[in-house]
Amino acid sequence: MSVIPNRGPRRRGHLIPIGGAEDKIGTRAILSQVLELSGGNRARLLIIPTASSIPVESGNVYCRVFTELGAAAAEVIDVRNRQQANDPGLERLFDGVTGIFFTGGDQMRLLSLLGGTLLAEKIIEAFASGITVSGTSAGASALSEHMIAFGRSGSSPSQRMVQLAPGFGLTDCMTIDQHFRQRDRLGRLMTAVAYNPSLLGIGIDEDTAFVIAPGDDCWVIGSGSVTIIDGSELEHTNIATMTQHHSIAVTGMKVHVLTSGYRYHLGTRQPCPPA
Amino acid sequence: MSVIPNRGPRRRGHLIPIGGAEDKIGTRAILSQVLELSGGNRARLLIIPTASSIPVESGNVYCRVFTELGAAAAEVIDVRNRQQANDPGLERLFDGVTGIFFTGGDQMRLLSLLGGTLLAEKIIEAFASGITVSGTSAGASALSEHMIAFGRSGSSPSQRMVQLAPGFGLTDCMTIDQHFRQRDRLGRLMTAVAYNPSLLGIGIDEDTAFVIAPGDDCWVIGSGSVTIIDGSELEHTNIATMTQHHSIAVTGMKVHVLTSGYRYHLGTRQPCPPA
Repeated sequence: MSVIPNRGPRRRGHLIPIGGAEDKIGTRAILSQVLELSGGNRARLLIIPTASSIPVESGNVYCRVFTELGAAAAEVIDVRNRQQANDPGLERLFDGVTGIFFTGGDQMRLLSLLGGTLLAEKIIEAFASGITVSGTSAGASALSEHMIAFGRSGSSPSQRMVQLAPGFGLTDCMTIDQHFRQRDRLGRLMTAVAYNPSLLGIGIDEDTAFVIAPGDDCWVIGSGSVTIIDGSELEHTNIATMTQHHSIAVTGMKVHVLTSGYRYHLGTRQPCPPA
Repeated sequence: MSVIPNRGPRRRGHLIPIGGAEDKIGTRAILSQVLELSGGNRARLLIIPTASSIPVESGNVYCRVFTELGAAAAEVIDVRNRQQANDPGLERLFDGVTGIFFTGGDQMRLLSLLGGTLLAEKIIEAFASGITVSGTSAGASALSEHMIAFGRSGSSPSQRMVQLAPGFGLTDCMTIDQHFRQRDRLGRLMTAVAYNPSLLGIGIDEDTAFVIAPGDDCWVIGSGSVTIIDGSELEHTNIATMTQHHSIAVTGMKVHVLTSGYRYHLGTRQPCPPA
């Protein structure tokens, strides 16, 4: 478990969670931004498709798109078990890498297979050294320290509506949800923030990304929106007194819904309209 | 969210999770050790009873015991809502404090009420500056970054058997369970480690404590045992493919059961018998 605080002096790369179903054939605004922040035409990308039940196909889709967009190199790391994820031969794959991309699938597969392995350690090290890390859908959820593992749909919060598990820990101040509007996930994100209101909830729609720059400045790109649930001024919640699956009360929860071009600062927790 | 990595150069205090139901009238070995590591007869303790549904009574019990054992001062901070937990007047209570103690109760009450407040921030700051922090039962679970919030009993792991929420984050490499043998919690601790095998599982019996020193050396005290679940050599788990509440498979999970006097090193993950 190697946590990289989002505030503080430590060097780290751009972190780009994507809400899933990003455009792969049109303008490809999100994947172009990923490529640009990974080094543009000098980018050497590692694609990690471990979340997917069809890893070869999933990995190859992104290899093809990034190559079409102009990446210098894009390679899939296809590990199927923990032994492979601990193979010292993996280390050389990180030589010269400028970006790491996680495909979608199931975040529990990703973490139960990679958590605590050499491959996970290399990814965390690469991010800490300044490499851009991005992920879509399950690959977005997996980036944070507190990962939404499962949950129920619905727009209002209820007890035990969401289940958390430890993610890769590339950011520790937020939990990330994806397919947000499309799968009606506001309630579970509010529930996660009610568990511990120090956590920021980031809900990302499909074809939308939340770019987190090393200096804590963030911005939204894509066709949908990013919903931010800020519990820092939460006045009250009865979550500890409710029994399983009952609706819970929260008062003073702050919500921002930001579309493409809007910015947000993690340190001050202030949103900012496009210039 | 302020995470203090358990490895690394940052200063921090002793951390003492207790499995609940510790002796308060006999030799009081555990509470005596808490007192000793909090400054002995120069100790000035803050008791935080927020987890309890009867905070005044719970807090006063520990004030009385620590005073009888020779503490220079012991004071209860009785905050009942988030407004009180954000009162700037709380800051002065931390002047000269040498130890912080969390009572038992419900860890969800503790975190949903204190998470992200000034009081939580002061506790984390105090720990980072070298102050000893201890907690019993719910107060033990709440110390870690990944906190076991709820779960089912039973000795073998199953899907969704345990639910995690963000705790105070005073250690990020382990999750802590309590009343461990008495409430039959081995299965849920193994499930938590299967979620992400980088996490160490620490299951503490009643009247037992796991003392975590700043240099990563740990030791067990009390009448029961501490069960350590180490997933670092885990070979395989099918947790991502099982549906809700089904039994899951794990292979290569390492287990240590340590009794009073045994030591454990978090960096090397090596247990060590008493000298």
